[in-house]
Amino acid sequence: MIAYLGPEGTFTHEAVRRWAGDADVAQQPLATVREVHDAVASGAADRGVVAIESSVEGYVVPSLDALVGSPDVVAVDEVVLDISFDAFVRPGRAAGSGTAGLREATAHPHGLAQCTRFVTEHGLLPVPASSNAAACRDLADHQVAFGPRLCGELYGLETLATGVEDFAGARTRFVVLCRRDDATAAWAPLRAGHETEAWRTMLAVTPVVTGPGVLARVTAEFAERGVNMSSLVERPLKVREGQYVFVVTLDGAPWEPQVRDLFTALLGAGDSLKVLGAFPVAPGGPGLDGVLPDHVPTGSVLRQDGDAAVARGLLW
Amino acid sequence: MIAYLGPEGTFTHEAVRRWAGDADVAQQPLATVREVHDAVASGAADRGVVAIESSVEGYVVPSLDALVGSPDVVAVDEVVLDISFDAFVRPGRAAGSGTAGLREATAHPHGLAQCTRFVTEHGLLPVPASSNAAACRDLADHQVAFGPRLCGELYGLETLATGVEDFAGARTRFVVLCRRDDATAAWAPLRAGHETEAWRTMLAVTPVVTGPGVLARVTAEFAERGVNMSSLVERPLKVREGQYVFVVTLDGAPWEPQVRDLFTALLGAGDSLKVLGAFPVAPGGPGLDGVLPDHVPTGSVLRQDGDAAVARGLLW
Repeated sequence: MIAYLGPEGTFTHEAVRRWAGDADVAQQPLATVREVHDAVASGAADRGVVAIESSVEGYVVPSLDALVGSPDVVAVDEVVLDISFDAFVRPGRAAGSGTAGLREATAHPHGLAQCTRFVTEHGLLPVPASSNAAACRDLADHQVAFGPRLCGELYGLETLATGVEDFAGARTRFVVLCRRDDATAAWAPLRAGHETEAWRTMLAVTPVVTGPGVLARVTAEFAERGVNMSSLVERPLKVREGQYVFVVTLDGAPWEPQVRDLFTALLGAGDSLKVLGAFPVAPGGPGLDGVLPDHVPTGSVLRQDGDAAVARGLLW
Repeated sequence: MIAYLGPEGTFTHEAVRRWAGDADVAQQPLATVREVHDAVASGAADRGVVAIESSVEGYVVPSLDALVGSPDVVAVDEVVLDISFDAFVRPGRAAGSGTAGLREATAHPHGLAQCTRFVTEHGLLPVPASSNAAACRDLADHQVAFGPRLCGELYGLETLATGVEDFAGARTRFVVLCRRDDATAAWAPLRAGHETEAWRTMLAVTPVVTGPGVLARVTAEFAERGVNMSSLVERPLKVREGQYVFVVTLDGAPWEPQVRDLFTALLGAGDSLKVLGAFPVAPGGPGLDGVLPDHVPTGSVLRQDGDAAVARGLLW
C-alpha cells in the first residue's frame, strides 16, 4: 500500500500514480505528513509519497523536517512533476456557451494565486477552497475550478481550458518514502537498472561545533573529493540554541567510493550524519534547475564595475 | 506611506504597526509582494513591509526572490513577531453560552492547519477563507474565526480564547524595505542608536563558476575573517542552467571592516555581489533561533557508534 498526503486529486496523488505506473497497488490518502511517516514507519504502508521541494516555494519545510526528525523513514526514490492547472466546469457547461453564466473561480488559495490571469480575464470572483481537489469535487454550475488534470477524471468534469497557470514551468519534486531497514532492498531494482545513471543523496550533517568556519570546513571536505552539492539548506536545532543541521543534496550514491570517503572524513571530524534519502535523478532533467521564473540578481556588482556602482550594490 | 502585503488584519499588518510605533504614518495594504516592491521602487511608498522567513515554513521564497531580483529595493530593518492565533466570535456570542451554537471554524487554510486541536476539541467544521482577516471580517454568528489579536480590534469581535495554535513558539521575520538610494539615510538613526549592537546583512553571491568547490571557496573566505553566516540558502538562476545564487545572512554590517574585507575578497575572485539588506538584530533574541519545533535529527550517527549503527544511518 502507498500512503500519500491527500486528499485524492492533488498533485501528490498524481505523483503517486506516475510512480506506481501500471502496478496494481492500493493508494491511501492521509491528512498530514506526520500520518504518512507514521504509516510507513509502522509498516501499515510499504511506501509513502510527499512533496519535498517546489521550484516556486523552495523546500516544503514540514516534509524536510519530518525526514530530518525520523529515525525510521528514508527517501528511496523521487518523482518530478510539472505543475500545471486545468480549468474545469460541470459536465455540459463548456459546450457552446463558453464561459457565459460562470461567475466564480474556486481552488485552494495557492491555486487561485497561480491562476490570477484567468480569473481576471473572465471577470470571475475567487472563492477559496480547502484544496484544489475539494474545489473540483464540490463544483457548482456557476463555478470554474482549477486543479491538476487528474481532478477532471476523478470527478467527471469537463475541461474548459488547459494550462491556465500564470507562469508555466513550475515543478514540484516528491520523495518516495520507505522504512530505513527496507531501503537497501528498495534500491536493488533501481540500482540494477541505473548502474550508469546519476544518483543523488540527501544528507543531514549536524556539526560538532558551531560558529564561523563550520560550513567552510564541511564544504571543503566536499570540494577536496570533487563531490558536488546541488543544494544546501540549514534547519535550526531546538535543543541546542544557535546550532544548525545542514541538509545537503549531493551528486552521488551513499555507496560510491568518493561519497563513502566524504562520510568517513566528516565522521572523523566529529560531525553527526544521517542519510535522509538517495535515488536516481528523476527523468526530465537535473531536479528543478533551469525551469524557474527569472532569478537574475539584478543590481549585483562585479569588481570591474567601478567604485560608485560597487558602493551602491554593497552599501558599504 | 508604508505599503504592506495585505489585507488589513494580517500578521504583516501587525508587523507594520509594531514597526511604526506611535508614528502617524499612512499604511496601505497591497495585494502582492510585487506591488509592494513597485510602490517602494517608484517612491509611491517610503517603506514596504513583507514577511521574509517563518520558523515553521522557512524562507518566504517569493519575498526572497523579489529582493534578489530587484535593482532598486533593499531591506533596512526587520521585525520579528510571535505568531499566535486568537479565536474570535461575533460580539455577545461568548458571554454565558460558551461555544454552544458555534458550528464552524474559519480562517486561511494555513491558520486552520495551525489550530486543528481547537477545531477538533470543539467539534467544529473547518471552513477555509481567503485570509484570516477576511474570515474575521465576514464572521457569521455560528462561526469561530482564527486570526491575529489585531483582527478582533479591527472588526469589533469578541475574543473567545487566546493562543489557540497547536504549537506555541512559531515566529515570523518581516523586512522593512526602502529604495536602495535611500538606505544610508534610513540607517542613520538606527546606526546612531545601535552603535554597539549586532547587525545582520543579507548578501546575494553569484559565483563566477559553478561545480564542486564553489561553496567551499566562498565559505572559506567567511571563515578566514571570522564572519559568521547565520543562514545560507540557494536559489537557482534561470538564465544560466545549473548555476545558483547564494543568499547568505551574515553577522555584521556592510561597513564593518571585516565585512568590507570579505566583500573585497569575493569581488576579487570574480563573484557578483549584492547587499539585499542590513539591520540591527531585532529585539527578542537572535532571529528565529531556539524557538522552533523539535528538529533533533534523530537517527544521526557518530563515528563512535559502531559499524552497524553507522551503516544503518548512512546506508552505504
